[in-house]
Amino acid sequence: MESQPAYQRIAATYRTRIASGELRPGDQLPTEHTIADQFGVARQTVRTGLSLLVTEGLIVARRPHGYFVRQREHMIYRPQEKSRPRPLVPEMDRFSQQIAAEGRSPSQRIEVSLVQAGPDLAERLRVEPGAIVVARRRVRFINGEPTNINDSHFPLDLVKDSEIMSPAYIPRGTDQVLADLGHRQDRAIDEILVRMPTPDEIHRLTLGPGTPVAVHFDTGYTADGRPVRCTVNVLPGDRHRIVFERNWQEEPVS
Amino acid sequence: MESQPAYQRIAATYRTRIASGELRPGDQLPTEHTIADQFGVARQTVRTGLSLLVTEGLIVARRPHGYFVRQREHMIYRPQEKSRPRPLVPEMDRFSQQIAAEGRSPSQRIEVSLVQAGPDLAERLRVEPGAIVVARRRVRFINGEPTNINDSHFPLDLVKDSEIMSPAYIPRGTDQVLADLGHRQDRAIDEILVRMPTPDEIHRLTLGPGTPVAVHFDTGYTADGRPVRCTVNVLPGDRHRIVFERNWQEEPVS
Repeated sequence: MESQPAYQRIAATYRTRIASGELRPGDQLPTEHTIADQFGVARQTVRTGLSLLVTEGLIVARRPHGYFVRQREHMIYRPQEKSRPRPLVPEMDRFSQQIAAEGRSPSQRIEVSLVQAGPDLAERLRVEPGAIVVARRRVRFINGEPTNINDSHFPLDLVKDSEIMSPAYIPRGTDQVLADLGHRQDRAIDEILVRMPTPDEIHRLTLGPGTPVAVHFDTGYTADGRPVRCTVNVLPGDRHRIVFERNWQEEPVS
Repeated sequence: MESQPAYQRIAATYRTRIASGELRPGDQLPTEHTIADQFGVARQTVRTGLSLLVTEGLIVARRPHGYFVRQREHMIYRPQEKSRPRPLVPEMDRFSQQIAAEGRSPSQRIEVSLVQAGPDLAERLRVEPGAIVVARRRVRFINGEPTNINDSHFPLDLVKDSEIMSPAYIPRGTDQVLADLGHRQDRAIDEILVRMPTPDEIHRLTLGPGTPVAVHFDTGYTADGRPVRCTVNVLPGDRHRIVFERNWQEEPVS
């Protein structure tokens, strides 16, 4: 240990205490002054060591209060719920009902725009790159804090005369609008990629340093295999846990 | 645009070209010299701008060749395959068969150790934090390059007299060993978290800068609801796409 620079020893010490559970999410770390005394180093050395843990996403600096172990898992995100029947309260979508049931306050902002499909969307919706698609873009908030991005995209020719073009909330849901237009989905593919956020995502979600995102592409298909919707969810790693349930389909071969 | 510092304009230019698909995975960027001439700046300014994109995980620097658009999706990872019958070739596990079928060379290193359960494992296996569990830890390689971590954990009392304790490959699979011991799994919960890697993960997987990981907890339960296995997969974001398929369970309520 002694051969490591002091700032690395400080980082390693608190990394271990967080991993072991000795320091728990939301706990405050000792002050820079206290740590400097313990390690016999300058406060700047403490700051350098703790900044490593900020970049790793383990702690956050909240001036002037100090450093805190990062709190994770603000929302359990269950893609499978999407293909279950709509919830009971039509004035609220699934996200809003889940958050309200937890005693928190959900809100969202919906914008509708016409965008050119980049390569990711074009491949999934089977349109030419650069083709115009309809984007219903929303940022979802919990207690006023931006939590995730949920942008749904539709081929323009499918939805151009429907209420999907209006930025109002649609009580029966866009899946039902598509079904009423003759494009009922019966299958979806969930794809999850992990990467650092783009500047646009950092801005829309007010992300701090060391916060990667899961990008969840949810593509819906009709019975004849045509993709009619591609939803791109951007889920900051510090605010989500993605959960699937799975049943064994047959006994393992012995 | 002109009000931005030059290094940010350079980063924004190449970020856009990558997002639009104009520059594709594996493509080489122009040399520092060429970009410096185009923007009328010093090469150090170009380096600062491109280093932003390295940190964002969009490009990689391969000295002395230059900068390249990062290649993603080296492996499609399908958790649902795990609960389907074992594949046909018992000498190879699922990972090895998938990679071999793609014409690539799979390999893995297995270690068995007794470890103390940290809070994540203790919660999922319903043991006391600090309790001893059996860990079968493996790093999986494609064409000799470390690709992901797959560490399975079992309560010690369940498996202590079984071949799970040996670091040899088990052709029938550990799920079948558990079933033979009277602990057949019929359900699993998949949980996916996203975060920056720990120093141990960076070391085991030789990760470059700006590479977040997906941590996939796969916990297997017997019919009476007891957790008997918790596998922790660590999937670098630049090497994996996680895919689930989903069928609509009922018609949406209209």
